[in-house]
Amino acid sequence: MTILGDRVAIVGAGQMGTALGRALRDPGSGRPVPEVVLYDLDPGAAAASLALGAGDRVLDHAALVQEAQTVIVALPVAAILLWLEQFGGQLRPGTLLLDTGSAKVAVVEAMARLVPARVHAVGGHPIAGTEVPGAAGGAGSLLTDATFALTPVRPDPAALEGGLEVAAACRARGLVLSAQEHDRLVARTSHLPHLLASAAAAVAARADQDLDLVRALAGPGFASTTRLSASDPAMVAAFASSNRRQLEQALEEFRDELA
Amino acid sequence: MTILGDRVAIVGAGQMGTALGRALRDPGSGRPVPEVVLYDLDPGAAAASLALGAGDRVLDHAALVQEAQTVIVALPVAAILLWLEQFGGQLRPGTLLLDTGSAKVAVVEAMARLVPARVHAVGGHPIAGTEVPGAAGGAGSLLTDATFALTPVRPDPAALEGGLEVAAACRARGLVLSAQEHDRLVARTSHLPHLLASAAAAVAARADQDLDLVRALAGPGFASTTRLSASDPAMVAAFASSNRRQLEQALEEFRDELA
Repeated sequence: MTILGDRVAIVGAGQMGTALGRALRDPGSGRPVPEVVLYDLDPGAAAASLALGAGDRVLDHAALVQEAQTVIVALPVAAILLWLEQFGGQLRPGTLLLDTGSAKVAVVEAMARLVPARVHAVGGHPIAGTEVPGAAGGAGSLLTDATFALTPVRPDPAALEGGLEVAAACRARGLVLSAQEHDRLVARTSHLPHLLASAAAAVAARADQDLDLVRALAGPGFASTTRLSASDPAMVAAFASSNRRQLEQALEEFRDELA
Repeated sequence: MTILGDRVAIVGAGQMGTALGRALRDPGSGRPVPEVVLYDLDPGAAAASLALGAGDRVLDHAALVQEAQTVIVALPVAAILLWLEQFGGQLRPGTLLLDTGSAKVAVVEAMARLVPARVHAVGGHPIAGTEVPGAAGGAGSLLTDATFALTPVRPDPAALEGGLEVAAACRARGLVLSAQEHDRLVARTSHLPHLLASAAAAVAARADQDLDLVRALAGPGFASTTRLSASDPAMVAAFASSNRRQLEQALEEFRDELA
């Protein structure tokens, strides 16, 4: 655990931040992190995450995350970009910086631009999640056996190694690939399915004024196809906009499939 | 159980036929049917269904179903229409005739045209199913608490009452509505989701030659959105063609939602 270090700061106490904190602190993992600190703009969210065991304490100020050896930014993509603008330049040399956003080109470009070269920065995307919003959805087992995609920011073996350490500590499977390849594939395995689920749910909701009747005629297949429509709209808007080009191309392929 | 009677014949020993047979024979339902007989063009399928407890015996000849008081045709829609062409006219007066197809206008029109007026014919559609094909997917509990849509063929209270008896005997919830209304709504709650799931799965499958990589980047959300793509292609083709107009309209609404 040389790179990950003894203190990990998690920025964002939502579903993913909570799941990460709980997994990293879980002694059952074989190598728990001695101290996990949490920060969230919303103190109530941070307290809820803390109460679920995602951290040892909550930070009062956003800037205090700099004192950790590893900083994990677990926010929607748009908020990650804002965070990097504001705090990326202040990170100390040797810090491991990782995010969890589901679109990676925009994030690694911002990291390369805003984060000092001696910070070990790497893009991250754990392929996991549930439709239960916020900390309540962040089970410590959420990442178990999930793929944890890692996308290099610049030539920096220590950053990749650190990312793989985080993945392993969460019992996830680290997978290194370029941000471009990630975004191309995830547009088709995740971003497009999110759009389809929401559009399919909207079509059904407009099928009849009597929504009880619509519900009665919607079976398990409908529930399954539209499950993703319950995802956090801020998260969906963020990756749809950050991965716009690939998503539009995936949508084009999808229209061709339908026709 | 005056209309349902003591002998029920199930035509088609696939997932739905098996689930129906098992539910009707289940003494836990409070009113098991004394004798359930099975027929399938494929004797192996009928034997598999019988082995799972879906019937008391298998019929050797398709025409023998006429000896039952209730006949349930559990086939894909296109096959139901063929069955009605061939056997609908030979049913005895007083027989209760029900199907389980997921498109209803085509079926009730064929029933009205081909089945003698003194046969109690009603369209049926249990809103249930799993992606496990054939008899193996036909758990006796598949219909428990599911909606069992019933669509009238002609003014015939006994037919509707019989349909409701079948639904209740399977512990499903009978829901009477017109075939037109059924098809309009089910196009949006089931048929459209089937198409979307298949198209989404196809887009992902073409995203990269390295399918292991695509799979690694496909999480639970992808699995959920595309689950229906594993459905029986014959069933999907049958309802897509039988409910073509409504499905095309639903697809139009879906395209508008996406745009």
